[in-house]
Amino acid sequence: MTLAPYSDDYFMRQALQEAEKGMHADEVPVGAVIVAKNQIIARSHNLTELLNDVTAHAEMQAITAAAENLGGKYLINCTLYVTLEPCVMCAGALNWSQISKIVFGARDERRGAGRYENIYHPKTEVIGGILKEECRQLIQDFFRKKR
Amino acid sequence: MTLAPYSDDYFMRQALQEAEKGMHADEVPVGAVIVAKNQIIARSHNLTELLNDVTAHAEMQAITAAAENLGGKYLINCTLYVTLEPCVMCAGALNWSQISKIVFGARDERRGAGRYENIYHPKTEVIGGILKEECRQLIQDFFRKKR
Repeated sequence: MTLAPYSDDYFMRQALQEAEKGMHADEVPVGAVIVAKNQIIARSHNLTELLNDVTAHAEMQAITAAAENLGGKYLINCTLYVTLEPCVMCAGALNWSQISKIVFGARDERRGAGRYENIYHPKTEVIGGILKEECRQLIQDFFRKKR
Repeated sequence: MTLAPYSDDYFMRQALQEAEKGMHADEVPVGAVIVAKNQIIARSHNLTELLNDVTAHAEMQAITAAAENLGGKYLINCTLYVTLEPCVMCAGALNWSQISKIVFGARDERRGAGRYENIYHPKTEVIGGILKEECRQLIQDFFRKKR
């Protein structure tokens, strides 16, 4: 399958690759990339087990790495691709970052920030559902194996 | 002035000392300590400027440090003392940590997590207003000097 570079599907596939790395490392498989000017400037997956740290979600790692890469703490004109809908912590961090766009894959009914109104920055565009079946399947498979 | 050790005022003074360190480092002066069995296991202040990272709030640093100290990522039976009401990001992180108690100083009308219902873990007790005048004054002085 060929994917148009710079499409939401293309970058979500990159986030899915990150999520798969998480899967192999026995982490809840959530992956993220941050894109600026069509270039990936940060890639990460969930590291809560490895780092023994509840704050080590994929999005948090990506925000920190992207800011480091850009040399500034605000992510204006950047887009985050993440395989699972951000939780409240990550949505709050994304709000502080003033990121321009958030694209997530599967919705997280239980812990997703979508349960709250006005949690994202008013200037941030949020889109859900890109490659949602594959994103959801990965997490489902992970928890099925755990049981 | 003598302060009873192990009182909320005592530990909030420790958090205030951290906030003052932030003030001297030209960071928004918010400080935090985490206490387990009446011992301080983590102390931190806001480091967003130094680390160039919007996620580097005092609470986030303290959660990471306390988990490292305890050797486990959950902060059950711990209390966080923080000079300013946690924001949405920090409230979300504290929820994941399952911390038992949160004591904050000044309320944050604009960015505080108190704007949202059910944002903290259902088992977390949250108390506000301890040494609130001193906590608020420190932040007010900081922003006054900035203008």
